[in-house]
Amino acid sequence: MKIRAFEDTDWPAVYEIVREVIDGGETYAYDPDWTEQRTREVWVEPAPSITVVAVHDDGTVLGTAHSGPNRPGRGSHVATASFMVSSKARGQGVGRALGEYVLAWARSGGYHGMQFNAVVETNTVAVKLWQSLGFATIGIVPEAFDSKAHGLVGLHVMYQKF
Amino acid sequence: MKIRAFEDTDWPAVYEIVREVIDGGETYAYDPDWTEQRTREVWVEPAPSITVVAVHDDGTVLGTAHSGPNRPGRGSHVATASFMVSSKARGQGVGRALGEYVLAWARSGGYHGMQFNAVVETNTVAVKLWQSLGFATIGIVPEAFDSKAHGLVGLHVMYQKF
Repeated sequence: MKIRAFEDTDWPAVYEIVREVIDGGETYAYDPDWTEQRTREVWVEPAPSITVVAVHDDGTVLGTAHSGPNRPGRGSHVATASFMVSSKARGQGVGRALGEYVLAWARSGGYHGMQFNAVVETNTVAVKLWQSLGFATIGIVPEAFDSKAHGLVGLHVMYQKF
Repeated sequence: MKIRAFEDTDWPAVYEIVREVIDGGETYAYDPDWTEQRTREVWVEPAPSITVVAVHDDGTVLGTAHSGPNRPGRGSHVATASFMVSSKARGQGVGRALGEYVLAWARSGGYHGMQFNAVVETNTVAVKLWQSLGFATIGIVPEAFDSKAHGLVGLHVMYQKF
């Protein structure tokens, strides 16, 4: 597996993963009615943000992430990031590899820290992964996510200082 | 003073307030390099969000607010809102009146609660106002705002359930 910058030709594979995650209804507060173009604008942001893909040796896209400033202007020294892994590639360390890549990118880029705004509390794999990579939960907004399987659950605000 | 829906002819007065707040560098992580058009897109969002103005009896715009879903899709049952008051109209209860109006709008519109994502901790007038209107701080993201006067300060995530 390697991680590299997103290229235009990756979009169909990335979109399949993003659609799968949105339709799953368990981890992202994204609008299922977004057009493909709108979805792409959300996932593939212009510079200074980056979008990357984790690619299997055979060329299959296993997962994707993007990272950039969490806020404009006087909040732009804190990064944020989002991650999605294909259901076919779970348990292979793809999320961790993407997390480590993006953290290294943000750290070397001069960001002061990284904030996740909305980690679904029932997504325990993600919460534990981010904890193991140095994030702590700042607070949990109660009932802020309507999980398809679990109903109303909290959203963690997570942060780590570099 | 009355509060009413934003109209196109309010934009010059609203923009003056928004510019003043951005340039002040104390309360909003907005990009000072945004064009006027981009600033308008941020402040005057399409439905289901609303933008309102607080207007003096003589027609002067004293302050403005917008409110709508904090997140798309499975997070859209929680509202958020933003508020700005002209420096010429401080201490007259404009922020409180806008807050009460927006809370009533969101409550009657079926939202489950309201979340503020980034209340600057040194903006104690705002923190106290929101507490007095029922908000509690879920957590503070440390050093997430680069205040012009105070340097790096925290951002409160505030929430109230309806």
